[in-house]
Amino acid sequence: MLVKLSTLDSWERFYRSNFINSLTGFKSTGLIGTINHHGKTNLGIFSSIVHLGSDPSLVGYINRPRKAAPHTLANIESTGSYTINHILPSFIEKAHQTSAKYPETVSEFEEVGLTPHFIEDFPAPFVRESLVKYALTLQEILPIRTNDTYLVIGKINAVQLEDDFLLQDGFIDLHKAGSVCSNGTDHYYKTVPLARFKYAKPGIKPKIIEK
Amino acid sequence: MLVKLSTLDSWERFYRSNFINSLTGFKSTGLIGTINHHGKTNLGIFSSIVHLGSDPSLVGYINRPRKAAPHTLANIESTGSYTINHILPSFIEKAHQTSAKYPETVSEFEEVGLTPHFIEDFPAPFVRESLVKYALTLQEILPIRTNDTYLVIGKINAVQLEDDFLLQDGFIDLHKAGSVCSNGTDHYYKTVPLARFKYAKPGIKPKIIEK
Repeated sequence: MLVKLSTLDSWERFYRSNFINSLTGFKSTGLIGTINHHGKTNLGIFSSIVHLGSDPSLVGYINRPRKAAPHTLANIESTGSYTINHILPSFIEKAHQTSAKYPETVSEFEEVGLTPHFIEDFPAPFVRESLVKYALTLQEILPIRTNDTYLVIGKINAVQLEDDFLLQDGFIDLHKAGSVCSNGTDHYYKTVPLARFKYAKPGIKPKIIEK
Repeated sequence: MLVKLSTLDSWERFYRSNFINSLTGFKSTGLIGTINHHGKTNLGIFSSIVHLGSDPSLVGYINRPRKAAPHTLANIESTGSYTINHILPSFIEKAHQTSAKYPETVSEFEEVGLTPHFIEDFPAPFVRESLVKYALTLQEILPIRTNDTYLVIGKINAVQLEDDFLLQDGFIDLHKAGSVCSNGTDHYYKTVPLARFKYAKPGIKPKIIEK
């Protein structure tokens, strides 16, 4: 079927939102951990995390309009620090529950039953249960004026992972790590490796890299 | 293991790049189809596609520095039109091969053996072999000055997909569609559904939505 703009615009709000939200593909999902100046921790699930570059090591995520998703953004602005924590199948239910609209005075860590974990010299909390996680220092917040969202850009400060997820060439085996991806606002998936290819060059047939 | 910034900075360039490139999670991957003013088509694989909002329907992708990835961006700036096409396991090799640095005068469609497909009133080519694909009109290009990359923002103009991928509530079943995701610059994955949850509310245990 071909869905034209006029059809899209005629659809009921939730139907249309499900459609558009699932269209862009499987999403990089993680739990963002922050803390406010009173020492109250916050944890929220975000599904629009995007690699921006390796040198410097920059990661972005999309924050919805301030009214819809205020706490994580405010804490990052206030402290300059946050963590991103991969989600495992064993706690997807808890991770999803962080999307509920809790008041600023409660910590999602306590509400959903995940454990804050701090490392030396970094103020924002990690999720102890997560096996791949990283600390970020705020670099820049780019407003996307068309829809009042923000691209929040952070520089990687530290990474915590299990030793045996790391392959010889530096690649992190996220399939082995069990990290989930998502689609739409409420579907979660695990992955199955298909292939890894060598660096592509014009005129040369792609080669699969064997394990 | 805990990898601190000083360790990250000491790593060899490719090792570090593999590490950072795989850290952010599984990626939304697609083939971006464009055309230049001489009618030459272009096709490139991009793995940092991100949903920005459903109303208006906005999708972003990260374009690397202009020197490293010039053609897709130039065509989008020149025509204002592009398509994003999901990748199937049956043509991941061809999709990966579009990442080779071909000169501007050749079309990756011809080089890798994928078929351009045009719909009425839209200048940019789709990939015929793709089963979920959408047309975008350029809205805005946000420069990310820290590393000379760009967030390219488009508004969805039309969507093409097989009827039976569409669920009753508007959600597109990308697992059924067979769309792949990726990690790093060269790993491709298929997915296995884990669970779908109801909209989360404070104080209510998350409920799985059964199929």
